[in-house]
Amino acid sequence: MTAPTLQNDIFLRALMRQPVPYTPLWLMRQAGRYLAEYNATRARAGSFMGLAQNPDFACEVTLQPLERFELDAAILFSDILTVPHAMGLGLDFLAGEGPRFAHPVRTQADVDRLQVPPMERLQYVFDAVSVIRKALNGRVPLIGFAGSPWTIGCYMVEGQGSSDYRLIKTMLYSRPDLLHRILAINAQATAQYLNAQIEAGAQAVMIFDSWGGVLADGLFQQFSLAYTQQVLNALKREHNGVRIPVIVFTKGGGQWVEQIAATGCDAVGLDWTASLGSVRKRVNDTVALQGNLDPMVLFGTEQAIRTEARRVIDDFGPVGAGGHVFNLGHGINRFTPPEAVGILVDEVHSYSRRHH
Amino acid sequence: MTAPTLQNDIFLRALMRQPVPYTPLWLMRQAGRYLAEYNATRARAGSFMGLAQNPDFACEVTLQPLERFELDAAILFSDILTVPHAMGLGLDFLAGEGPRFAHPVRTQADVDRLQVPPMERLQYVFDAVSVIRKALNGRVPLIGFAGSPWTIGCYMVEGQGSSDYRLIKTMLYSRPDLLHRILAINAQATAQYLNAQIEAGAQAVMIFDSWGGVLADGLFQQFSLAYTQQVLNALKREHNGVRIPVIVFTKGGGQWVEQIAATGCDAVGLDWTASLGSVRKRVNDTVALQGNLDPMVLFGTEQAIRTEARRVIDDFGPVGAGGHVFNLGHGINRFTPPEAVGILVDEVHSYSRRHH
Repeated sequence: MTAPTLQNDIFLRALMRQPVPYTPLWLMRQAGRYLAEYNATRARAGSFMGLAQNPDFACEVTLQPLERFELDAAILFSDILTVPHAMGLGLDFLAGEGPRFAHPVRTQADVDRLQVPPMERLQYVFDAVSVIRKALNGRVPLIGFAGSPWTIGCYMVEGQGSSDYRLIKTMLYSRPDLLHRILAINAQATAQYLNAQIEAGAQAVMIFDSWGGVLADGLFQQFSLAYTQQVLNALKREHNGVRIPVIVFTKGGGQWVEQIAATGCDAVGLDWTASLGSVRKRVNDTVALQGNLDPMVLFGTEQAIRTEARRVIDDFGPVGAGGHVFNLGHGINRFTPPEAVGILVDEVHSYSRRHH
Repeated sequence: MTAPTLQNDIFLRALMRQPVPYTPLWLMRQAGRYLAEYNATRARAGSFMGLAQNPDFACEVTLQPLERFELDAAILFSDILTVPHAMGLGLDFLAGEGPRFAHPVRTQADVDRLQVPPMERLQYVFDAVSVIRKALNGRVPLIGFAGSPWTIGCYMVEGQGSSDYRLIKTMLYSRPDLLHRILAINAQATAQYLNAQIEAGAQAVMIFDSWGGVLADGLFQQFSLAYTQQVLNALKREHNGVRIPVIVFTKGGGQWVEQIAATGCDAVGLDWTASLGSVRKRVNDTVALQGNLDPMVLFGTEQAIRTEARRVIDDFGPVGAGGHVFNLGHGINRFTPPEAVGILVDEVHSYSRRHH
């Protein structure tokens, strides 16, 4: 079977710093609770995991934002915690409380038991990729993703979200050997997981280091970036002769952007505290940049949304030999009015033409 | 009355980049819940505000960490929310929930009512400064402090702590005029408040911009830094012929350090994501730096505490014409074992001598 030709490949071309007519755009968590149709599908699925584990439901919600908005990429509907769930940690999404693991990894015995899970346990994810890819039928590219070894490690040790990361940092500063073992297993599992997504049809992949920015300078490099590097080293960068670009996003990582770019990724994702213009100078267009609007701009007036979108585009500047993929600097908020996304897409697509 | 001569002025000298024999050290929130004696005093006071509003209790807890540890500065026991409380917003500390305002500032009518409060309403703070200064009797310098206009604005609009700052950012992106009015009032109130602390005996002052780092690049400068600058412009920088150094601390502000330094403050406080060595090069020793150990290091082994303290000191490097005040990059965690602080003080004082 030959895959249909992509009708809109500007997202992939921007990641590879090739000329494009305008700045492509997608939004982290674009298939999510701000859309009524998402909430309806989730209600039919019964639970978050019921949604994520059913390839047809996952496909349905992945496509929903594309029906509403002229987005330039689709992203697999899933969660970064599928990998530790497959390790047997017992993921549950409690109503109003977010994800929680029944069996967090805290002791030496817990670490001794930890293994790279058989990828068959994640077959539902790879099936979702195939189903979505087929349903997209070449409309826009499909992005696969995973959490970084450090970020999924945070959830595995804390057992849930955290405001101070006390448990994993206590391990870091008292039993770094245990933490390194966890992270090495996570890196292997994540590489296998992303490679299987690529085999199933993902046309670009993104590594979410959502919590890299809570680490001290010096330790970020040892406990987060070094393991993201291991994932990158083991990734298929081509599939059926086609390049598969890799995006690394570290929330709060603006200060480390040279080092993140040096991992050999194709693009670096940034949050809104970074200036794309200054970052671009620092990395000298050796990678594309993705970002970086504050998701809260979408609660502003139409004028503010247009002004702030232009600010991001102008900060990046004339694209030339660089590459820019417009995105938010974090997932879209669940209370966002959907009309705001329409305004944003319109502004990015029209205004950015002057810089291409 | 002449104030007694300071027995230990190395904190003040380090802030002014004068030669000192070792790196001085104090800890944000050093008088706090990790100390059993603090909890005992708080229980006697009945509530957080009961503690903060009684100068004798405030003095008692301010001095407690100095009895245990050889710290090089005392900091007034108080809270950044005393100022909006004096504006009539009705501060309450609910058990286990943190601060909350009965009357948050969200509408145009709320903003129309807002005024710089008469400083007499904050007399309890200035009384505490005088009482503490007298009790210190020249042992170490006393630091006064306030929140930045933006940071107290966050609490005033949100009404409590927030994880996404949705309400204040909605105001920023839809009614920036209202937010600018709030911030201008906050800047005036904060300058008067800090000047009154200086008159009462504070020997250095610190502005906590705890939430500056949630703003987008470009907007941080307009909505946070510009108002911190207004405070600085109105501050007494000398009292009775003695220089009063000013520290500006922006959590997550490492990327903006040149601009923060350009406000004319004496020192910039940094969190642990910044490298003191690189920041120092960027500001070229025009200001002293304060920070920047991750508070979670204090949950590590003795060896880890000593190693990480050395890493911070070595990253700053030979002090020369610069100035370094050792601190955490955020307030000490309530579950910190007090012995860990003793180890940290010992290591900073002994190891840092090689760099002076």
